[in-house]
Amino acid sequence: MDSRRLFDPKKLEIFSSNILQKLGIPENDAKLAAEIMINTDLRGVESHGVANLRRIYVNGIKEGKININPKLKMFSNSLTSALMDGDAGLGFVAGYHATLEAIKRAKKYGAGFVAVKNSTHYGSASYYAMMALDSDMIGIALTAGGRLMMAPGSSKRAAGLNPIAVAVPSYKNHPFVLDMSTSVVAGGKIEIAKRQGKTIPEGWMVDERGNTVTNPFRYNPKDSKWKGGLLPLGGLPETGAFKGFGLAVLVDIFCTVISGAPLNTKANHFFGAISIEGFQPVMEFKQQMDQLINSIESLPALSKGKKIYAAGGLESEIMEDRKKNGIPMDEEIICSLKKLSEEYNVIFDLELDSKQDISY
Amino acid sequence: MDSRRLFDPKKLEIFSSNILQKLGIPENDAKLAAEIMINTDLRGVESHGVANLRRIYVNGIKEGKININPKLKMFSNSLTSALMDGDAGLGFVAGYHATLEAIKRAKKYGAGFVAVKNSTHYGSASYYAMMALDSDMIGIALTAGGRLMMAPGSSKRAAGLNPIAVAVPSYKNHPFVLDMSTSVVAGGKIEIAKRQGKTIPEGWMVDERGNTVTNPFRYNPKDSKWKGGLLPLGGLPETGAFKGFGLAVLVDIFCTVISGAPLNTKANHFFGAISIEGFQPVMEFKQQMDQLINSIESLPALSKGKKIYAAGGLESEIMEDRKKNGIPMDEEIICSLKKLSEEYNVIFDLELDSKQDISY
Repeated sequence: MDSRRLFDPKKLEIFSSNILQKLGIPENDAKLAAEIMINTDLRGVESHGVANLRRIYVNGIKEGKININPKLKMFSNSLTSALMDGDAGLGFVAGYHATLEAIKRAKKYGAGFVAVKNSTHYGSASYYAMMALDSDMIGIALTAGGRLMMAPGSSKRAAGLNPIAVAVPSYKNHPFVLDMSTSVVAGGKIEIAKRQGKTIPEGWMVDERGNTVTNPFRYNPKDSKWKGGLLPLGGLPETGAFKGFGLAVLVDIFCTVISGAPLNTKANHFFGAISIEGFQPVMEFKQQMDQLINSIESLPALSKGKKIYAAGGLESEIMEDRKKNGIPMDEEIICSLKKLSEEYNVIFDLELDSKQDISY
Repeated sequence: MDSRRLFDPKKLEIFSSNILQKLGIPENDAKLAAEIMINTDLRGVESHGVANLRRIYVNGIKEGKININPKLKMFSNSLTSALMDGDAGLGFVAGYHATLEAIKRAKKYGAGFVAVKNSTHYGSASYYAMMALDSDMIGIALTAGGRLMMAPGSSKRAAGLNPIAVAVPSYKNHPFVLDMSTSVVAGGKIEIAKRQGKTIPEGWMVDERGNTVTNPFRYNPKDSKWKGGLLPLGGLPETGAFKGFGLAVLVDIFCTVISGAPLNTKANHFFGAISIEGFQPVMEFKQQMDQLINSIESLPALSKGKKIYAAGGLESEIMEDRKKNGIPMDEEIICSLKKLSEEYNVIFDLELDSKQDISY
């Protein structure tokens, strides 16, 4: 049972939007950013939602890293592709508009792809991938993340954590939504271990000599003296680390090389939409997806009482619950929001009014 | 040093083509299949080349599983997509023609995708992905492989080993060619351990109770009584197994659900081509790729004298060597070719004529 205090998603969304507007973000952009953040918390991906409001977005704006009034520029050299320059604005804004463009092109031509350079942190990749679902399309979202991944067999980092998200529509079932960093774990899981005072499993993180590290406090991505890194999915070379690393480099290619950004930069993105009806009648496809998901979610588990999920299944269940019952939050995050409330003079009134269905 | 006997790639190719023709495969199809097989051996991917000539292709034809005279049927519902029915012919033939169609559409529209159902084993995925390179495109090839992957946390198999191949062109450097099963290892590595009498590392294979198995002889994919399976990339749930499993299911979606094949069938494929010039001037892109590959291949290694490769780098070096010096082969494979030579009355004269450059 989650014993944390519950907060009202609608209030959280309005609060986040108001804070961003106080910092000079135009109303529409602020509302969009807030909606994406809260959607992410509703799905249970707490590392990528409102937890980052102060740490990444507000601080980024204050430090001048995030441009509050970006002029998005779009170029196109083929029917199915476009390039966007995010003008260092909020990644949410570039990501949303780039995805809309990919979907627009997929409606006309069957597929559409938009690469974005010069953006900033865009939150959770699955949001953009899932934007394609309502148009009966498969959505794809990639982003070049923090450059913290060790190359397999090397003593140096050589790729970002580089999440891959793909969303596929179904009919009565939840959509298939894969959203994974290409490392064994993303940094968020190590931050959680820090907060809980636990060690981390072997195979997540190594030092610069390749030795496994289980003390989460040795994870210090902002300290330039820290030379360790996170292992690629697969862990060690003998258990397939070159595969996770290969996927991470591939994401760097799609986000950074294709978008024309300088190598080793982060916050470049790539979005894609592929129309189902270019291949199969939509309803037949979706019903097949239902069957596929059911076949996975009815598998017997090794641990009694545990459910096996197809990608996105757990998040759908969490969302259903949180839309009704509210979003639980860590004290540390609540504190950061209270500070913002004081700093920007936005009323902190985020708790649930009653135990009744809040139907977000 | 590889102490195995060396064989002439050109002679191996002609031999393979002749064997297939003796079985009734039309000349063009037989030549194509042989070329793809030998190309795979030249790249050092010995599990997917001529080693399978007798075991998979000849036996498949004799058992009536492979149709020697398929009529490939193609349908299209959008500018950028097509569907193919492989008519149970050699996967090489369907794969080659489907990839050509994807490239043709990418030339016109920037991107092209072809899903293939009702095919058979197509060899190495990277061959098809690499077909796009000469057209300055990124090539993608996916296939639904043997259904041997355990679902994470479950006692049952629920996906194929489902390789993903993506090829990206560079200028002076080797192309980036990722070709990976979505399991920790593909079955071929376990077969090699069997031949060498070695145990396999923990984390590759489990029994039906989820216990790790290090004896490679317990890997019996054709025995219906064997209920174990191979672990998804990531290994155990705590080291990201759900990611490898998610990727495997995604490949099933692209190959099987999108192509309209029945769930749980294998040998359905998906091919894609994405034109570079839809995004960036080709030469600038390729030079960036050179830089990216150089930056990886100049990384310091933890083990002295070892080189870190970007995906496809090792295979390029092996190919350069084998084109000059010949293809080394295991006695077991040589035996299988000798048997074919006798059975089909095709002269077995495959060894190198001299130590000179054979320049395949």
